[in-house]
Amino acid sequence: MPAIELILAYDGLPFNGWQIQANGVGVQALLQRAVRTMTKERTAVIGASRTDAGVHALAQVAHFHTKRNIPPHGWLRGLNSLLPASIRVRQVRQVPATFHARRSAKWKRYRYLISTGPVASPFLLGRAWHIFAPLDLRAMRSAATALIGRHDFRAFAAANDGSRSKVRRIYSLKIRTVRGMRPAKGATPKGGCIAVIDIIGDGFLKQMVRNIVGTLVEVGQGKRAAGDIGPILTSQNRRRAGRCAPPGGLYLVEIGYRLPFKRFRSVPLP
Amino acid sequence: MPAIELILAYDGLPFNGWQIQANGVGVQALLQRAVRTMTKERTAVIGASRTDAGVHALAQVAHFHTKRNIPPHGWLRGLNSLLPASIRVRQVRQVPATFHARRSAKWKRYRYLISTGPVASPFLLGRAWHIFAPLDLRAMRSAATALIGRHDFRAFAAANDGSRSKVRRIYSLKIRTVRGMRPAKGATPKGGCIAVIDIIGDGFLKQMVRNIVGTLVEVGQGKRAAGDIGPILTSQNRRRAGRCAPPGGLYLVEIGYRLPFKRFRSVPLP
Repeated sequence: MPAIELILAYDGLPFNGWQIQANGVGVQALLQRAVRTMTKERTAVIGASRTDAGVHALAQVAHFHTKRNIPPHGWLRGLNSLLPASIRVRQVRQVPATFHARRSAKWKRYRYLISTGPVASPFLLGRAWHIFAPLDLRAMRSAATALIGRHDFRAFAAANDGSRSKVRRIYSLKIRTVRGMRPAKGATPKGGCIAVIDIIGDGFLKQMVRNIVGTLVEVGQGKRAAGDIGPILTSQNRRRAGRCAPPGGLYLVEIGYRLPFKRFRSVPLP
Repeated sequence: MPAIELILAYDGLPFNGWQIQANGVGVQALLQRAVRTMTKERTAVIGASRTDAGVHALAQVAHFHTKRNIPPHGWLRGLNSLLPASIRVRQVRQVPATFHARRSAKWKRYRYLISTGPVASPFLLGRAWHIFAPLDLRAMRSAATALIGRHDFRAFAAANDGSRSKVRRIYSLKIRTVRGMRPAKGATPKGGCIAVIDIIGDGFLKQMVRNIVGTLVEVGQGKRAAGDIGPILTSQNRRRAGRCAPPGGLYLVEIGYRLPFKRFRSVPLP
């Protein structure tokens, strides 16, 4: 049966994550229901990445098989009319029957947004992690270098991570800033900024990005030295790493099916 | 009594607008309650602009009088701890007792966001007006020129606008674009953009910005000629103008207390 590939954006706030949950609504459940309404088949929809509750997606990838002969724009319009407005199908493509959204994936790019400053923007509620005091981004960048490459990332994985091998490769971890809410003419208080952390890897353990961000933030706050990251990694001990960053700051930005990845193709801020 | 000036940001979605409403919660009511908790006085909080339900503010200005001697950062922290996270006090200043947030205002700047493209971003729900087909921004810019200057704007006011004089001066109306959600590598469908309309005037009648935007969008969609705007204005007939644009795309961006206004000081996207 031919396969259809979907590229999806969703606001993670209204949903309990990608996967079908015992209590609550998963993005996958809503998507699969919409697909089945169109196919009238018992179609299974498979996603590339099981985003946690509250985590957003700009370009999640999913696939399904169907005998129905509907053109891509027909799927796009049909599915978007059946889905809630906080989940959107952005693109539809016919792909070879062997395509598998998760197994064929070669790399994933996640983005984490941190806003800093004395006042949190109401417009970033549930969309960025707000931290009041400024972060030492230089120390965070220096700390991040220890994570690049192929390592056992057990120390940064959730206790209930189900994958057999804990070895993953991080290709790139970059931190840049964009301006956040600014105060007017020299008034109290001073303004903050938004730190954008972009991380590319061949795959990520459960909560790995959020545990990495949480640990880097502790470095940025001066609670840890930049040199601590290497020893945490080699300790393979979750308790050595920092806290798990909140889900609302995390965005699944891109999934690639070919290597090498195209570096920092422009993906707009969420 | 000395006066305190507050600069506020709020997400308009959770509230029924600025003013205290018979049914529902107004931003003013919540703010006044927080101020009274701190002053233990029967303080009245006065805002510069009565934003409608769903309309956002990046820098609403409000003032109140109090005998309490609290430093600006004390007000900032205290009020923000008492307010919901979707309303934030961004700045606090002591101002002369004669300062009046509404009466002293010399100009206001509003911004309207329109997203276009075949797929609406889940992240702009209630924060931009989504229009599927591309807009002819050139025609819209040309149409807007007829609005610049001092005119009777009755044709663009809500029927229940309470102001005696309908004459207002528009100093500037600019339309620019920023990139919205883009599709990957040549896939269906093509991406859209975000049109940012910035409008500065000495004051605005009720729903005036939204009625102007709604009419300009009809020009951008080819439903009206750019030259129609002048005759609509001189007709002073509301029924001649276009539909009222939805409130979620509108942002109160800045209020000025001195002339001339500083042109397009950088205010981040919402």
